[in-house]
Amino acid sequence: MKMPNEIPISCVCSISSTMENIVVTGIQGLPLIKAGDNLAQMISDRVAIGEGDILSIASTIYSKAHGYTKPLSEIAPTPRAERLGKLNGEDPRFVQAVLDASDDILMEHPFILSELSFGHIGVRAGVDQSNIDDGMVIFLPPDPMGAASEFRDEIRTITGKNVGVIITDTCGRSFRRGQTGHAIGWSGFTAIRDFRGDTDLFGHELKITEEAVVDEIAGFANFIMGESNNGVPAVLFRNCPTWTGHDNIYFTREEDITRRLLKEACTR
Amino acid sequence: MKMPNEIPISCVCSISSTMENIVVTGIQGLPLIKAGDNLAQMISDRVAIGEGDILSIASTIYSKAHGYTKPLSEIAPTPRAERLGKLNGEDPRFVQAVLDASDDILMEHPFILSELSFGHIGVRAGVDQSNIDDGMVIFLPPDPMGAASEFRDEIRTITGKNVGVIITDTCGRSFRRGQTGHAIGWSGFTAIRDFRGDTDLFGHELKITEEAVVDEIAGFANFIMGESNNGVPAVLFRNCPTWTGHDNIYFTREEDITRRLLKEACTR
Repeated sequence: MKMPNEIPISCVCSISSTMENIVVTGIQGLPLIKAGDNLAQMISDRVAIGEGDILSIASTIYSKAHGYTKPLSEIAPTPRAERLGKLNGEDPRFVQAVLDASDDILMEHPFILSELSFGHIGVRAGVDQSNIDDGMVIFLPPDPMGAASEFRDEIRTITGKNVGVIITDTCGRSFRRGQTGHAIGWSGFTAIRDFRGDTDLFGHELKITEEAVVDEIAGFANFIMGESNNGVPAVLFRNCPTWTGHDNIYFTREEDITRRLLKEACTR
Repeated sequence: MKMPNEIPISCVCSISSTMENIVVTGIQGLPLIKAGDNLAQMISDRVAIGEGDILSIASTIYSKAHGYTKPLSEIAPTPRAERLGKLNGEDPRFVQAVLDASDDILMEHPFILSELSFGHIGVRAGVDQSNIDDGMVIFLPPDPMGAASEFRDEIRTITGKNVGVIITDTCGRSFRRGQTGHAIGWSGFTAIRDFRGDTDLFGHELKITEEAVVDEIAGFANFIMGESNNGVPAVLFRNCPTWTGHDNIYFTREEDITRRLLKEACTR
């Protein structure tokens, strides 16, 4: 994950003070997604994709198309899943799915909070039972960065256009109630816009130097998608500003104070 | 500093089957804001505001216009500020400003994390030294909900239009590097979109029921604003979807697990 400039800088907006418009399209009319569906084709059929566009898709439709789902009936809960199911009032098979998807459990109660192999920390490991048939669970894509890159390649193959891709999940936050959209995979630009070396309006070097732009875009995409039966699982952004930066969005275990405290409390 | 181009940037988004467009405008051409400036008038002069629009402004320009700033030279650091200044490598007068703005300190090092009187938890209590004269600090508005409501009234008086208002700050998050825009004050709608009672595409009652839409909009506004010398401190959203919900965005102290763990670790 590199090449912040792979998307041509022809698309510029407020940030560079030109007057080109940003256009954001909630992609409607997608049917219920099932395993084997060609998402890139289905989306390309429904919206005109342009060079440099950003395409944000809900992780749920990516996972459904790629079969990252499982019937609860095929899951045999371990004693730990039985215990946590009782503790948290959840189906132990669902709890087992969460444990299976987790690399490291940070908190067991009142809900499981865990780290996934790709670095994301999320409630119930992002395992979902919404918008899928009864008795099924949806997992996050196991390699969302690879998924975003692959999806980007597919769009290029179909349309001939280079796009940026963000795969979103809906996550809770510390200190604030309510979920917001977060990026779990991206391709075509960096996660972080790095202002190091930039100056403010008075010429001072900036103190706030790293802006997690992929999460700001993912949040807005999520606002357009909604959570319920809106059926808008993909959003297209046109003429977005470009940025440079890096992809180190996840803290290391040493850096992450909250992670350490939660883990200590959980293992106490 | 005058921006070379004062023509607003627009963002057109279709989200509902009615295909009504959302238009988002980065408001350019605002001069450096100083105490006593009539922000509502200055913004109304630069963009055509419509009924039901959402206007998002950076807390820094609200605070500057209302004089929530202070010269460091007028701040006498207490022994605690001297100690924390040494510990964190910061000017003890700046640290004193942070302590003065804080209602409860949750963490002292490597940076101060504290709760403000209105419920927001933020790094250095949101006290800022960017985009202001040397030797000055900017505080968050002490009553951002009141500020948003008052600003909304001013826009109505000037334009005759009812708008929604979001006052933003740039905040870090747990688990993820990089700041994103968050709402610290809002008026004209609720912070949380509440899906309780809604069903998903399969008719199941939704598990994720509360979406913090004000933060998703604030994040996108922040993406358009940028952090450095872009000079776009206000963003207008037109034809946004509407929602119902509630304003309880801040956890109670009992509910907030991260807050409790940080506080325990800090007082250990």
